[in-house]
Amino acid sequence: MDELSRIDIDLPAIGHNLGVIRQIVGDDCRICPVVKSDAYGLGLHRVAGTLEAGGADMFAVYAPAEAVELVATGCRLPILVLMPVRELSMVDPMYPGLRTGQVHLVVHDVSNLDLLESFAMEFDFLLHVHLKLDTGMHRGGCDPGDGADLIERIMDCPSLHLAGICTHFSSSSTCRETTDRQMDRFDAFIDANADLIDSDCLIHCATTASLNFGDRYARSMVRVGLGWSGSSPNPTMDSAISGLSPVLRWTSRIVQVRHVARGERVGYDGDWCPDRDSTIGIVPVGYVDGYPTPPRDHQQSCTPLVVGLLWNDQLLGHAPVVGKVSMDQLTIDLTDACEVNSISTNCRVELLSNVQGAPNDIQSLAMAGATKPHAIISRLHPRIRRVIHGEVPQGNVLSAGDHAQRGASAV
Amino acid sequence: MDELSRIDIDLPAIGHNLGVIRQIVGDDCRICPVVKSDAYGLGLHRVAGTLEAGGADMFAVYAPAEAVELVATGCRLPILVLMPVRELSMVDPMYPGLRTGQVHLVVHDVSNLDLLESFAMEFDFLLHVHLKLDTGMHRGGCDPGDGADLIERIMDCPSLHLAGICTHFSSSSTCRETTDRQMDRFDAFIDANADLIDSDCLIHCATTASLNFGDRYARSMVRVGLGWSGSSPNPTMDSAISGLSPVLRWTSRIVQVRHVARGERVGYDGDWCPDRDSTIGIVPVGYVDGYPTPPRDHQQSCTPLVVGLLWNDQLLGHAPVVGKVSMDQLTIDLTDACEVNSISTNCRVELLSNVQGAPNDIQSLAMAGATKPHAIISRLHPRIRRVIHGEVPQGNVLSAGDHAQRGASAV
Repeated sequence: MDELSRIDIDLPAIGHNLGVIRQIVGDDCRICPVVKSDAYGLGLHRVAGTLEAGGADMFAVYAPAEAVELVATGCRLPILVLMPVRELSMVDPMYPGLRTGQVHLVVHDVSNLDLLESFAMEFDFLLHVHLKLDTGMHRGGCDPGDGADLIERIMDCPSLHLAGICTHFSSSSTCRETTDRQMDRFDAFIDANADLIDSDCLIHCATTASLNFGDRYARSMVRVGLGWSGSSPNPTMDSAISGLSPVLRWTSRIVQVRHVARGERVGYDGDWCPDRDSTIGIVPVGYVDGYPTPPRDHQQSCTPLVVGLLWNDQLLGHAPVVGKVSMDQLTIDLTDACEVNSISTNCRVELLSNVQGAPNDIQSLAMAGATKPHAIISRLHPRIRRVIHGEVPQGNVLSAGDHAQRGASAV
Repeated sequence: MDELSRIDIDLPAIGHNLGVIRQIVGDDCRICPVVKSDAYGLGLHRVAGTLEAGGADMFAVYAPAEAVELVATGCRLPILVLMPVRELSMVDPMYPGLRTGQVHLVVHDVSNLDLLESFAMEFDFLLHVHLKLDTGMHRGGCDPGDGADLIERIMDCPSLHLAGICTHFSSSSTCRETTDRQMDRFDAFIDANADLIDSDCLIHCATTASLNFGDRYARSMVRVGLGWSGSSPNPTMDSAISGLSPVLRWTSRIVQVRHVARGERVGYDGDWCPDRDSTIGIVPVGYVDGYPTPPRDHQQSCTPLVVGLLWNDQLLGHAPVVGKVSMDQLTIDLTDACEVNSISTNCRVELLSNVQGAPNDIQSLAMAGATKPHAIISRLHPRIRRVIHGEVPQGNVLSAGDHAQRGASAV
């Protein structure tokens, strides 16, 4: 039966990438991989298991349900829930994880703290919280001016433990100056409140993008998402991170080869009109699968989307995507490729290459698709079959006790 | 535990929409709902069951696996697989459906026909095929010039039954002239080969978009996708279809309300900069969920994306989405809304309204999001909880025998 496409996931590459990040941040800095949205769709269980075995110290997710799912995989590391939690009860599936101290929550504002405080007090356990400061992103967190009061309240409450203080950069993949301005605000806050902050409190702000600028943003923990997946957020900037291995490869096949006369129009709204007699191929992958759909003017002004052409898994060359991407089909221009090779419906195509620098690697695909690497990875539809290479390591570097200890307190 | 968002699906509306289509095409025309990609993510079982009970005559899917899944739901209607099938074997999960005549395949070219012919001959059963003509879309199908030979081969083969001839329009939601040109080519082919075509052969070309122009495109069967979901492909054009009921509603909540001073920047890359002191809200929904991410220049030149603000499910007003949509969050400008109402984290928001004409209905969301209604619906992430209203009708209008009869032959 025809398979539309498949995604190959290289688990050892995830472990390798964690090692690359470790090299940059050193042994004294915690690494907190971000594994929200089913580890960007790569599979929470296998990705988190690989990262835990590879020496991750903590995990970050966005929503409570994701933390519950992560606990259920057998994960033994602390888990940080990034969103402002507004609903809590004793029958909450997250409750056991909060009670054991494995699940940490983020405090974004006063009403958020009110809820967490009264909940922890009522059920009489120590809840680990991280205070989020808004240093310029204006998407969650509190103003630095309100931060000191919140810290004091957390320190005064016997049921709360200030496990971390964090912020998030708005422009770390595009603008170093903006990132530095945010960093300065964050540093100023930490300095001004040094007396209130225990030495075991994790200070974290960097993601993969800011680590690109070097390790000055690392502090005591870094939250890396794109990094473990082997992607650099902005390949056009000088990067301190090198040697990441792409984790994903997405392939499909050609299901039809056709001739189209010069001047005919191809696809929805006839967006593409070849200026020579052409050969096109139909690939059974479209936007529902997560293939990007750049606007027409972007397509015309930028390097086009291309796919690799494969024969027995050997790369023959590349072919540009032409015309509008449909729901479950796209069209490629095979005219040049056909001059050199015999292209038929037996050919496979590579939509996303796992070779860095290829014209269809994650960065090129994102750029040509008018989107970002995060969006490419996380929007690959769950219906696409995942083929896993390597195994989730069984034994972990640290024992469960060690991890809980390291996560809840600090180096 | 906080839920990020939910989608309400109105099953009776699907039945109603089928009735609207029936009114337009009349009783002598078959209706073939397109239910590919898990019925655009709404759930194949429930959608197909509702459509079958509502009087659908056939279903179209894109891939063999979708046909197999549809057979497994208990569907008794014929199922048309649109893609060119290139792999067939006796252990194929699709084989039983092909053998009973429930699953029909599309012939796109000679090599495609070679495979189907030899397969049906080898296993000695009658395979129902539809010939697809390329009349200008250039995405699958054969040139009309090659069509007559293919028909003759099909008619000459005792194991093949020409159950249909079809084409697909490239511009039916944007350009009537182009659609008419394709229709003329299709008609010319049918006329020229009238002697070869049995009266039971289904002639089909129209989708919901072309029915918008009136019923002249209907022929003996129409393939409707957007129509059953209650959406019009292009609301700016005069439409022959009225009275469709939107099937989907997508809601979430506000998880934080914050003040942002004039001149501060909001979100990734600081794309939005308010020219007054503002109040913003954070909604825990982002592009991974399927919320559109229009390019910045599109955002600035078009009506903005808006969400509805709800209190006890009553609409208080609307708020524009500001700044870049993140992976799992978006930001709305509540400044105007706060002047009139008290907006807090208890407010729910409506991302996609089920009220036609609302500024966040499917068409408006698609237009403001620089995408199409199909893409909005089909890309809603499976992780979002679906809440079903109404039940899949149990008894069907026609008996299984009637359906098989009507599907395999014709009126």
